[in-house]
Parts: sequence; C-alpha cells; structure tokens
Amino acid sequence: MPEQLTLYLLKLSPLSQKIELALVEANAPYKAYQVDIFNKPEWFASKVNPIGRVPVVTYGGPDVDPEDPSPLSAKISESNIILEFVAYPDSGLLPKDPVLRANVHFFINATTKHIEDPFYAFLRGLESYENGSVLKGIEFIQGLFKEGRYFAVGDHYTIADACITPHLARLKIVTETDIGDFPVGAGYMLGEELKGPKFSTFMKYVKRMLEHRSFKQIHDEESVIAFFKKIFIKRVQ
Amino acid sequence: MPEQLTLYLLKLSPLSQKIELALVEANAPYKAYQVDIFNKPEWFASKVNPIGRVPVVTYGGPDVDPEDPSPLSAKISESNIILEFVAYPDSGLLPKDPVLRANVHFFINATTKHIEDPFYAFLRGLESYENGSVLKGIEFIQGLFKEGRYFAVGDHYTIADACITPHLARLKIVTETDIGDFPVGAGYMLGEELKGPKFSTFMKYVKRMLEHRSFKQIHDEESVIAFFKKIFIKRVQ
Repeated sequence: MPEQLTLYLLKLSPLSQKIELALVEANAPYKAYQVDIFNKPEWFASKVNPIGRVPVVTYGGPDVDPEDPSPLSAKISESNIILEFVAYPDSGLLPKDPVLRANVHFFINATTKHIEDPFYAFLRGLESYENGSVLKGIEFIQGLFKEGRYFAVGDHYTIADACITPHLARLKIVTETDIGDFPVGAGYMLGEELKGPKFSTFMKYVKRMLEHRSFKQIHDEESVIAFFKKIFIKRVQ
Repeated sequence: MPEQLTLYLLKLSPLSQKIELALVEANAPYKAYQVDIFNKPEWFASKVNPIGRVPVVTYGGPDVDPEDPSPLSAKISESNIILEFVAYPDSGLLPKDPVLRANVHFFINATTKHIEDPFYAFLRGLESYENGSVLKGIEFIQGLFKEGRYFAVGDHYTIADACITPHLARLKIVTETDIGDFPVGAGYMLGEELKGPKFSTFMKYVKRMLEHRSFKQIHDEESVIAFFKKIFIKRVQ
C-alpha cells in the first residue's frame, strides 16, 4: 500500500476488526479513525460513505486529518471488498496459486453464509438454538478445513482467517457469558455442545486464531463484552 | 489458464452465461458441458458439485471426458468466484490498479443486490412492480457508471460487464414479451418506463453490451424466450 490509507471503523464491530486484522497481518501502515456510530459526525456521510456504514477505507490523495477527508482519495466500502483490496497485490494474504485463491474466496463467502448470518440471527433472538442453524453452519465450516493451521490454505494465514476470526471471538463470548437476545441459557448450551468431540477440529482452530499475535493486538475482549451488555437486552423467559 | 478447464453449465441460465462470456473475453480455451438440470446425471453431485448447482468449473488434472470427471481436478463453484478465477492472473478482465479493481468488485456486488435480486423477485411474482425495487435498483446501478463504454472501468471490459450482461439480456426479453410470473402488462410497463430520458445512460449501456461480439457468440435470445415460456406461468388477473 504505497499511498496513505485511513480506516474508518468501529473497533468493537467484527466487520471493522477483520480489516484491522488484515492490515496488521499485511504490515501495512494505516491510520485508524473510530467513528461514533451512535452519534455520527456530519461529514462522514457527505465525505466518506453516503450510506453511513463502517468500515470504509480512504486510499491515496493528500495525507489529511481523518476528520477532514479529501475528495481526492478513493473511498472503498464493504468489508470483504476492503479485505481483497488490502490483500492485493503482494500482502502475502492471498495465495498466488489460482485454485488456492479461489478456495480463499469460497471460504470467505462460506463465512458469511454459514457463520455470520446464522450466528448473529441467533444472537439477536431471530433464530432459535433448537433450529440448529448455528451448529449446522459450524459443522459445514469445519468440513471445509484442510490439514494444517489455517482456514483455506493449510500452512498460510490468509484473508479467509482474518475474515472469520472476529466472529469466532464473539462466539466465544456468547458461549461463556450467555449474553444475547436469545432465551436464557441458550448461549451456554451452545458452548456445551461445542466442547464435544464432534467439534474438536473447529474448536482447536478457534483457540489458535484467538491467540494469534495480530488478533491479540487489535482485540480487547472486555470491551466487546461491555458493548454486548449495552446492545443486547436479555429476554426474560 | 494453462491447464484443462471444463465448464459445467446450463446455457440458458444467466449465472452460467456470465462465466462463458468471461471465458470468451479472456480467450481461454475451455470445454463446455451442458448439464440437464431437470434430469441431472448421477455422477454430477458425487463427482462435480455436491449441492448439484451449475455453473461449476473443473480445472487441472487429466484431460478427461466431462461425463467422467477426474478426482484430480479442482472443482470451483459459485459464479462470482469462478469469474474471479477466470480473470486471474492476466486475462485482462481485472484492472491491475488496486482502486479500479476494488471498483470492479463493488460493481459485481451491486449487480447481485440491485439488479439480480430485485429483478428475479419481480420475474417470479414475489415483488410487485409498484413497489419500485426493480427501477430503484436500475437507478442505483446507473448512478455508478463512469464515463466511457464499460461498467466499472470506463475504457475497459471487465468481469463486472460480464457479470451484469446476461441479466440485461433477460430484462430486455421481459420488457418486450411480458413473460414472467408478474401481473399481465407489468413487463411492458417496465419497458415503457425504461424508454424515458431518466434511464437513457443505462439503456445505452444495455444496447452496447448486448451487441458485444462475445455476448452474441454465446447468447441465443429465442432459446431463452422459449425457456422462459416453459418455466413461467403467467398469472391471470
């Protein structure tokens, strides 16, 4: 990334975290600007992202104060597109081999469909634990693992690992604290199920990713727990 | 693409067409194998795609009869992932510049969200014309055009153009024939609206893309119309 790169983010959001994680893994210099999403500054929609969402990256143009973004920088939005942007052309986060590269893309799509969508629906109380979609999604993902330490390409950290890790951190929190808009106890039940031998490959991967140096550098579990307590109101049975 | 590439497809499906279009534009040699989706051969799920969908590409391994796929080839599924695979590394269908490349990815996502999803929902009678999502989607897409002939990058044909063109061909059919599971006349109404000055940039692009040599080579409008007549049963008001 030879030009200036500013990441507008919400540090506690998984979609923002995955970009920060990729930037740290890529050793790319960047400025991080925390957007107050509950009280967005006026210039954010007009000068950075018309639809108001984070994460967004500005790239190139003059090196300006993030609160006064330049019209000359490119604005790049949508977290998986930013991931791809950070990886290109030679971050080392995307394999050069075309088939392995397609694997990475397949795993990124699978993360959205089989982890992100069902897990946050469960967290928001929109999808029951009994329906099984969270566990089915984890099982599907586990079935995709290659031998080796990493997700899409066994011996190499890629944007597929950066994409899934922030969701795994939230899965851990939910199973250990039971915080979420699901019926009381459903978070703990999910945690018990995941401790079984059926999910051991998946859980070993979770542990490894959460202990990855880059992730520890950008993730503060206590802050995410405090944020979850604020946004989720436990339904009383 | 230095190794063998076989495309399993349904020639009449827009998702399959976009891959064929990209392969033709990339001058990549490939074998096309038409899958009878109404009567799928048994080997297709077990040897090519467990979920049974087309398009799928097999890449590498020995050069075999498509009806006897080799376990040694890579199997690549999901149409946008295949598009990316076909484009990589030097097809000329993806710009080298990282920002233009991110634009292409943004446009591909926008095609799914703003054209594909609302248009096929309308076609299937799941989304009313009055709700306006088809026209709003087209308006959004039109707002993204750069100056120049092509979609994401003004002067250069990319996989973003290949991605949207098959949908545009179906939009044309629907507005000219009124075939679809929507109320009688809604297809024609959509066509009248699109003739107005508001959509002239979009319609010029549609015309240009449908006349592109590569698209004419792989598209037979009469066959798609016959297929539409078979799959859509017009609801009588």
